[in-house]
Amino acid sequence: MNGLLAMIKTPQDLRLLDNSQINELAGEIRQKIIETVSETGGHLAPNLGVVELTLALHRVFNLPQDKIIWDVGHQCYVHKLLTGRKERFSTLRQYGGISGFPRLIESAYDSFGTGHSSTSISAALGFAIARDYLKEKHSVAAVIGDGAMTGGLAFEALNHAGHLKKDLIVVLNDNEMSIAPNVGAMSGYLSRIRTDPMYSRSKDEVEQLLLKIPNIGPKVLKVIDRLKDSFKYLVVPGMLFEELGFTYLGPVDGHNYQATVNLLKQAKTCKGPVLVHVQTQKGKGYLPAESNADKFHGVGPFKIETGDVINSTGTVTYTEVFGDIIVKLAETDRRIQAITAAMPDGTGLRKFANIYPDRFFDVGIAEGHAVTLAAGMACAGLKPVVAIYSTFLQRAYDQVIHDVCLQNLPVLFAVDRAGIVGDDGATHQGLFDLSYLRPIPNLVIMSPKDENEFQHMLNTAVKFQGPCALRFPRGIGTGCVLDKEMKELPIGQAEVVRKGKNIAIIAIGNMVKVAEDAARILAQQGVDAAVVNARFIKPLDEKCILDLAANTNLLVTVEENMLSGGFGSSVLELLTASGLKTRTHCIGIPDNFIEHGHPKLLRDIYGLTAEGLVKEINMLLGYRSNTLKLIAD
Amino acid sequence: MNGLLAMIKTPQDLRLLDNSQINELAGEIRQKIIETVSETGGHLAPNLGVVELTLALHRVFNLPQDKIIWDVGHQCYVHKLLTGRKERFSTLRQYGGISGFPRLIESAYDSFGTGHSSTSISAALGFAIARDYLKEKHSVAAVIGDGAMTGGLAFEALNHAGHLKKDLIVVLNDNEMSIAPNVGAMSGYLSRIRTDPMYSRSKDEVEQLLLKIPNIGPKVLKVIDRLKDSFKYLVVPGMLFEELGFTYLGPVDGHNYQATVNLLKQAKTCKGPVLVHVQTQKGKGYLPAESNADKFHGVGPFKIETGDVINSTGTVTYTEVFGDIIVKLAETDRRIQAITAAMPDGTGLRKFANIYPDRFFDVGIAEGHAVTLAAGMACAGLKPVVAIYSTFLQRAYDQVIHDVCLQNLPVLFAVDRAGIVGDDGATHQGLFDLSYLRPIPNLVIMSPKDENEFQHMLNTAVKFQGPCALRFPRGIGTGCVLDKEMKELPIGQAEVVRKGKNIAIIAIGNMVKVAEDAARILAQQGVDAAVVNARFIKPLDEKCILDLAANTNLLVTVEENMLSGGFGSSVLELLTASGLKTRTHCIGIPDNFIEHGHPKLLRDIYGLTAEGLVKEINMLLGYRSNTLKLIAD
Repeated sequence: MNGLLAMIKTPQDLRLLDNSQINELAGEIRQKIIETVSETGGHLAPNLGVVELTLALHRVFNLPQDKIIWDVGHQCYVHKLLTGRKERFSTLRQYGGISGFPRLIESAYDSFGTGHSSTSISAALGFAIARDYLKEKHSVAAVIGDGAMTGGLAFEALNHAGHLKKDLIVVLNDNEMSIAPNVGAMSGYLSRIRTDPMYSRSKDEVEQLLLKIPNIGPKVLKVIDRLKDSFKYLVVPGMLFEELGFTYLGPVDGHNYQATVNLLKQAKTCKGPVLVHVQTQKGKGYLPAESNADKFHGVGPFKIETGDVINSTGTVTYTEVFGDIIVKLAETDRRIQAITAAMPDGTGLRKFANIYPDRFFDVGIAEGHAVTLAAGMACAGLKPVVAIYSTFLQRAYDQVIHDVCLQNLPVLFAVDRAGIVGDDGATHQGLFDLSYLRPIPNLVIMSPKDENEFQHMLNTAVKFQGPCALRFPRGIGTGCVLDKEMKELPIGQAEVVRKGKNIAIIAIGNMVKVAEDAARILAQQGVDAAVVNARFIKPLDEKCILDLAANTNLLVTVEENMLSGGFGSSVLELLTASGLKTRTHCIGIPDNFIEHGHPKLLRDIYGLTAEGLVKEINMLLGYRSNTLKLIAD
Repeated sequence: MNGLLAMIKTPQDLRLLDNSQINELAGEIRQKIIETVSETGGHLAPNLGVVELTLALHRVFNLPQDKIIWDVGHQCYVHKLLTGRKERFSTLRQYGGISGFPRLIESAYDSFGTGHSSTSISAALGFAIARDYLKEKHSVAAVIGDGAMTGGLAFEALNHAGHLKKDLIVVLNDNEMSIAPNVGAMSGYLSRIRTDPMYSRSKDEVEQLLLKIPNIGPKVLKVIDRLKDSFKYLVVPGMLFEELGFTYLGPVDGHNYQATVNLLKQAKTCKGPVLVHVQTQKGKGYLPAESNADKFHGVGPFKIETGDVINSTGTVTYTEVFGDIIVKLAETDRRIQAITAAMPDGTGLRKFANIYPDRFFDVGIAEGHAVTLAAGMACAGLKPVVAIYSTFLQRAYDQVIHDVCLQNLPVLFAVDRAGIVGDDGATHQGLFDLSYLRPIPNLVIMSPKDENEFQHMLNTAVKFQGPCALRFPRGIGTGCVLDKEMKELPIGQAEVVRKGKNIAIIAIGNMVKVAEDAARILAQQGVDAAVVNARFIKPLDEKCILDLAANTNLLVTVEENMLSGGFGSSVLELLTASGLKTRTHCIGIPDNFIEHGHPKLLRDIYGLTAEGLVKEINMLLGYRSNTLKLIAD
């Protein structure tokens, strides 16, 4: 590695560079990020947008004494390059390599781990409280996008911070985007601040302006001064933040390093909470990303020259099937409405949005609102479909229980990215949903074995007159052919996909194919395994499972979810309630957070492959209980 | 029942009354509510505050065609009295009686069920979307307190509603309280609107005012007009809401029936979203509640003459023990900080707040922020204790996973009101926490058998260097004596409270005493039952449980939590992983939402009493599996 970046061992080294060198360094950093992400995939556009801002932050703040908390954290690549991780940067998002998000365990420069949106101001306020209580002296800054600002958590924190009056800097990275272009009144407000010259004038400038107008002299100004607080409205942009107790600074062009440094220095000297409004452009410096920031928000490997994404396969993803089928279902059932929390593309709803713009609702990064909105719509006779990632549905847990399921309302949760998600790591794995959804009364929970069953389940789910969660994995399906006609599956009915005398495997979702493959290998070894596709986690097909359990020596459950409270647990609860003592074994995710890495690799590690299953079952068949040992200890 | 209230069969009948009769009716309603709540307990102060407002709402809107959604819903008593439930009003919050909250299944006049805070605007927007899509014509109004407005969900909904521009009325019931007096910058903002006369002037009034001042003539007004949007700041109160796309109307005195009716009529004719700012006084019309609205927010039976609460017992509650012990622990460990989401009294933190005001944080009704704030504080070296009800912790689920446990931060969740809560009903039962917390890695979960163990657990928890949840029930404990010295319990170690040869009962939390009592009854019947106090749900005491399981014919688990994924499930998972086939039976809450009613009654119904356990165990001991029947079907 040559050039200026090679010289930056710690952020302190930035102080040695003059402004033209900073520009050169910014160029090198962009080059490095584009090259790396073109191979590893990752969050390209957000990082290209914050190169100068990150340089300015590290110029003004002295990490790790000062704290910077990156909201969401997908814009931390520049920060990582500047804080001792450039040599390992090629391992970005790879198993064992550096994470695509800030992580406490990765570096002392990562003040707080993030991944989900809108947490930074809350955490930063916590740091500010601790600093003052422990009588420490340092700055605390949260860097938050205008998209993340639509999340209620950010508002709760602003409201509390404005009340507490602790020294705290909130850097609003305003790129007019969350992932998709922003929606919401807050976004309109920010846009008015940006474009209305009045908003951008200082009080002095406005006074000068008024003095130039005939009949307005010092006397009038004095009158207006009497209106003091109200007058602020006339001259202070960012009044909304001022009303919440923040000092508003900006807006500043976030690609102008020196201007940004100056404003951040000013913020550092302010007492109380400050909001620094920085305007940046997502994808800055790489034309394909500038012109299509949506696509390059999070992207797989791509060709640098053209920006074309390198597709490793022609097979469709579950998300694409969802996008197609929900459009098809909406043709015949006009009650169907689609809701996303700022992810029209990630959830596959773009096509629906184009065809049915009046039936499509992007609510911003506001999962809780998405779900309660759906409850209201369902209560009023519509059939809302909330398309959401498993990990983000965690953010609307109470709304699922309290607003939807308690009232038994027909809301369909299309839970995408359920199971192992991979490269984004521990913050994004969809491994909890079966456990946290299962205890909720009234809720039907299903998961398909392949894309074809997925369409039948979607059809079944939208016709079901109550709350329903349909979980499906990230990425491509099995490549199976889709039936022309959609069927309606009986609620709570499993499918025996293979008969067998020796053992029985009950699998759910994408693990059904794994179980079938395992059964084929076992057959070659002389073990005849039955395989059941559970289809429904709730209600379970009690008859099918008890029948199976009563007629086998070993029952194995397989799921891509935490073992604790998951699908296997529901089978154990059923067997126990029925008094059956069939020897049972549950395969799934153990009690750990699962790191980043390719899903295939992670499934290998956790034995969620045909080979893994065969190995585990062979061990069980040669199994001697070590329980007695434990008791004897 | 005599008087005017007796004449009101439907809200339509309000139209027959003149203003003086309305005042008379308001008095009768207050009387009825005070009399009833003095016997049943309930949310007194919120309801006394909205008598005239509710009358005005029902005068202006035509239910059930028009929709009114009551945020939180504890202020719906007047509404219930006006909508056909006055004869059943004495059954308020009683098992089988009417609920203390709006419920879909209770009345067509209850447009949407509520119970938790800040959901109303989201739901109302859902109704407005459905109305327009289905080409219906009616009004939709959300009635939300200024306290509930601090919840992020309300902000998410305001932001989205301001963007969508649907006709929607948000009635801000501003009583300067949530449950405790409000905190937060938003509250300061509302207070400025209320008190600054400038804020309350119309644009015309200000223009007239300016014209009276020398040197300010039409010309100047024209100049100011050029500044158009900015000028709005000068004259429009509620600018914060205007910035979010709402038309702001008010403030109006919510105890002035006619003025409120007039403003609501104006709101009804507005296009787009409207915020109607209504000022009310909590507890209005009953002196003890006016002067102590906190205490009378939610209250047990009390003497009407004095306002004294009728205490049925002198025994201390778990909440009181928590309040005392956390103060004691904070004396020696200055890292300890306490956080509540708007419930300093409900959580027992009042004493802590008084003694350590700089270590106490009331964040408003903002559970998500409470938890992420705690994560930030813990990350910076403090030991935050988040005191929260089980049902409200659901609102911070992602923050518990993503901000606290993933980073393994030492935050203590003091989970109060866990288990059956009783009178508040399905929206408030704390029956899910064991199921939703159990799958989270790194988290230690414990629950004490009595108040004495509770103090030891609190002491243990604050010394533990990682995330910890301590769940405890609503209400009084066993009345046991507290040890002088606090002990530190070994993490993950259960306690054998009774040895026995025939069967074994593993209980958690308040069910330990129930199990001990059951064992005594069983002993009289000749059944010798061992009883284990599990203490820890996570990590389980594997050795103790496996030992027990290996040496008994029947293992029974007992918990006050959903059976699905709960404590019993964790025992089943352990037994299965260990290959033990001990006959096991789990006792807990079945797969239903649990209605309101006295906790004692509900425990009777669900068999969570000594007698219930004995009955169940006797049945098991005479048990013949009906599994084979099911299979033969």
